[in-house]
Amino acid sequence: MSKREYGQFCGLARASEMLGQRWTLLILRDLLVGPRTYSELVAGLPGIPSNLLATRLKELEESGLIVREARSGMDRSIVYAVTGRGSELQPALDALSRWGAADMHEPREGEIVTEASLVSALRSGIENGTTPEGTTIRYTIRAGAAVAQASVGDGSIAVAPGENPDADLVITAGPGFRDLLAGALDPQAAVDQGLVTVEGDPGLLVPFVNAFVVPYTADTASR
Amino acid sequence: MSKREYGQFCGLARASEMLGQRWTLLILRDLLVGPRTYSELVAGLPGIPSNLLATRLKELEESGLIVREARSGMDRSIVYAVTGRGSELQPALDALSRWGAADMHEPREGEIVTEASLVSALRSGIENGTTPEGTTIRYTIRAGAAVAQASVGDGSIAVAPGENPDADLVITAGPGFRDLLAGALDPQAAVDQGLVTVEGDPGLLVPFVNAFVVPYTADTASR
Repeated sequence: MSKREYGQFCGLARASEMLGQRWTLLILRDLLVGPRTYSELVAGLPGIPSNLLATRLKELEESGLIVREARSGMDRSIVYAVTGRGSELQPALDALSRWGAADMHEPREGEIVTEASLVSALRSGIENGTTPEGTTIRYTIRAGAAVAQASVGDGSIAVAPGENPDADLVITAGPGFRDLLAGALDPQAAVDQGLVTVEGDPGLLVPFVNAFVVPYTADTASR
Repeated sequence: MSKREYGQFCGLARASEMLGQRWTLLILRDLLVGPRTYSELVAGLPGIPSNLLATRLKELEESGLIVREARSGMDRSIVYAVTGRGSELQPALDALSRWGAADMHEPREGEIVTEASLVSALRSGIENGTTPEGTTIRYTIRAGAAVAQASVGDGSIAVAPGENPDADLVITAGPGFRDLLAGALDPQAAVDQGLVTVEGDPGLLVPFVNAFVVPYTADTASR
């Protein structure tokens, strides 16, 4: 039995063996947003020791969760990308993200929002989200240096990294953004009090908060 | 920033900080089945160093995911139990279990099934399960030394540890049990070929496999 094995015929034990090393889940979070070069991964994971990143990528390749491949198109850089098996992790990572976010109210001193963490946070809210009928609304969302885009409408909710130049509403996250996603703050009040800033029709914030729902814990003892 | 923190305002990062230590997820799996004394935890987690278990329990208490309390009733033993916040982990642990089980076909040399791993495996299959109408069927499931019980009927599926003395069907898991849960083996064929053993009407195996569904990965490259 290797050092990482638990000796149990159990799906959770197998998952822990493959995912339980420090930084592994965050590397997978970033790659679930899209293929990344080594340097892009380093940039999205401030504080990761470079040799550790190399080790984790090698482990994930050996587990069949990611592959190294040449980027398609003109730029033939080597990127890391999730395999089918790796992409099947999305629902579990979304569930873990929602759970972790449920008692996360404000950033700790020095905490940052990365592009992948913003996309991942929004994506984790889709499961509980609802969409307007007969129309699709496009958003750009900025949080610190991170930018994401979303489209919401007719039963479909999608999130991607980067700006949408044709966005109907640009949302700049302020201290009220986490409360908004939790349904703990009225969208109009958030705008009026300057807790989020919008460019466009502020009414479009309502379908946004209906689409991305990341509730706070129901365990009041832990709030 | 402490050694375990990632410096990111991200639900997945927070979850990793709280759950990323070795054995932590398996301890929580066991406590999600029910409160356990220290000795019961040791018995369910063969190979865990005793001082490590003590450390992990302390960390989980400090994170507000578990509490120490006296068992109710005559036996006032001290047990560890999940808090509300700890119990909110169930959907995420189920999703991770399903993912880990998706490319788990046969036990590795020496791997065992514990009571909690059996209950946890069955519970993870409920999300994809369906129930018969107008009737409730009670099962006892044995896998190695582990025993669990289930009841299935009218939109409700429940799993608990231990035997059901009034079971309509007793299932003894053999080498075909994992395939059965994955829908990769016909129940009648499993019985005919001795890949599982049943006491009772073998037809009752059909609603069982409809209720507990733990599919194999769709990524054929990793099978």
